Amino acid sequence: MATPSTTGRPTPERIFNALNAYQQTAALRTAIELDVFTAIGAGANSAAALAAKTGASEKGVRILCDYLTIQGFLAKDQGKYVLTQEAAIFLDRKSPACLASMAGFLGTERARNIFDSLTLAVRNGGSVWSEGDNTKPNDDFWVAFARSMAPLTVPASEFISGLLRVEDGKPAKVLDIAAGHGMYGITVARKNPKAEIVALDWPAVLQVAQENARKFGVADRYSVREGSALETELGNGYDSVLLTNILHHFDMPTCEKLMRRVHASLKPSGKAIALEFVPNEDRVTPPTAAAFSLMMLANTDSGDAYTFAEYEKMFRNAGFVKTTLHPVPEMPQQVVVSEKSA
Amino acid sequence: MATPSTTGRPTPERIFNALNAYQQTAALRTAIELDVFTAIGAGANSAAALAAKTGASEKGVRILCDYLTIQGFLAKDQGKYVLTQEAAIFLDRKSPACLASMAGFLGTERARNIFDSLTLAVRNGGSVWSEGDNTKPNDDFWVAFARSMAPLTVPASEFISGLLRVEDGKPAKVLDIAAGHGMYGITVARKNPKAEIVALDWPAVLQVAQENARKFGVADRYSVREGSALETELGNGYDSVLLTNILHHFDMPTCEKLMRRVHASLKPSGKAIALEFVPNEDRVTPPTAAAFSLMMLANTDSGDAYTFAEYEKMFRNAGFVKTTLHPVPEMPQQVVVSEKSA
Repeated sequence: MATPSTTGRPTPERIFNALNAYQQTAALRTAIELDVFTAIGAGANSAAALAAKTGASEKGVRILCDYLTIQGFLAKDQGKYVLTQEAAIFLDRKSPACLASMAGFLGTERARNIFDSLTLAVRNGGSVWSEGDNTKPNDDFWVAFARSMAPLTVPASEFISGLLRVEDGKPAKVLDIAAGHGMYGITVARKNPKAEIVALDWPAVLQVAQENARKFGVADRYSVREGSALETELGNGYDSVLLTNILHHFDMPTCEKLMRRVHASLKPSGKAIALEFVPNEDRVTPPTAAAFSLMMLANTDSGDAYTFAEYEKMFRNAGFVKTTLHPVPEMPQQVVVSEKSA
Repeated sequence: MATPSTTGRPTPERIFNALNAYQQTAALRTAIELDVFTAIGAGANSAAALAAKTGASEKGVRILCDYLTIQGFLAKDQGKYVLTQEAAIFLDRKSPACLASMAGFLGTERARNIFDSLTLAVRNGGSVWSEGDNTKPNDDFWVAFARSMAPLTVPASEFISGLLRVEDGKPAKVLDIAAGHGMYGITVARKNPKAEIVALDWPAVLQVAQENARKFGVADRYSVREGSALETELGNGYDSVLLTNILHHFDMPTCEKLMRRVHASLKPSGKAIALEFVPNEDRVTPPTAAAFSLMMLANTDSGDAYTFAEYEKMFRNAGFVKTTLHPVPEMPQQVVVSEKSA
């Protein structure tokens, strides 16, 4: 993986670039904040036009857009900037698939500050953050998550709905644990008019989920349970229990405790559906899923990106009989489906 | 440049990764701080052995080393970590070419904090940092630079010495402007016993250069001038004047002012030798040199990464007759040589 120079000898360029990689985060966040992508999408394709549109200096915009071109989010042709396909789809606010709101949660000052203590986290084997145990409400953080990350859920929520065969339109009772924005359960409800969703999360976060349930017209089939997934009464008789992006926050005994509670809440034919970053056994591929482990080390007391073998074992210990892995198309995440009975 | 998924459609993975890119900086800095690369080079190649050697937790080390593997600074084979070629050369402190000290200047908390205001810098067209004009001493910053970045100078200082034909051993008087660690001038003095070096910088920084001159046995041919390159009397009769990594801090009129002073200080046959990040005319290639422009936008009031055409014009306006460009092998930098007379 060394960067060969023209002489074939390794160069320090990648090391230099990694020490400066924080600039990639800053540049993309600044571009989103100034809404440069939307401006380019609307035809402001020179530094002068972009400066006029964004209220920034021409020099500043030129340097920012050149940097974004180097990073592959723009292309430059005869001095004019154009959106790359991914920027047009995911960063132009006029695009229905726009994900620019992610900058409200990813790469924020809070997120970066936690990584200022990464050395301590490596020493400790867990976060130095006071909120790292994830068993108590942390409204500010999780409301920001719920408000920012909803658009990113589209591919995975469509995929999960497919796995649940919502198009059959059979009556289904679905528990959405740590619902956040609620989009996974809401998507099921939208696609299956006979689905009833119970969303569990902290009260402040559930307000966002309920807003979304109203927005997508499923509020009449959407109820909530407030509190901790590890302590609140979950109810029972569920066809499916969604565990989206929650298990990675905990150590294995805590995951198994939660899985046992889920097992007890399911119908005999029921399934647990976990959305996760699942590295291969080598823990270094695929890259984005495997790298997620560092995010958990820095942010949580005892979380991790678990392998499929680890998930399979935990679900088995919790009483589940069959566990399978399903990669989400176009996303670095995977779905782990675990069945209560054979 | 979109990331094609298995279905050929673009995915948001690169956007997700750019918003998290600050983690690459944190991980490499932490690994250098814990001296993980040296430990692996010395044979501690499992998470358990590395934990014992570095005093960190096994889980923390495992996650850190997996992340470094994903980033290409380590390889992993049967659960054991090995240094990639570039890590062995540039990050193991036992290696004579080790550049780990760069972490004392690049990606530091101060460096990152400046980028927290990138949006304002883009609006302004220049840094919001109070030290951004670079015409007054900033000892803390430039002493850190001088102490941290000296090892990175080896390829460029060897290359510059070659351009100056130091092996001829002819008497040569060399002015090293903004000498910093002093390594460019010191390398000339080491290779040519008849070279005399005059180093110019702020007093606190010159102490580092003088330490290095003593360390490399050239102190008897090493004198200093304290103060600003734009105001201090430079002396005259120089065969060469080195302008290494200084011009990018200033706007064009200030660069030309400095070039005129350099022109006046040179012998008729003399040359100015600038070491710079020089992007192509498109300003987006080659990537590292072009991206340096953003560093200057964030850190300086009016600096930039200038193209060769811009350098050529500025040198011409300052009275130089011929300017040529010379890429430094194995480095993202280039040398601009400008001759006083034909």
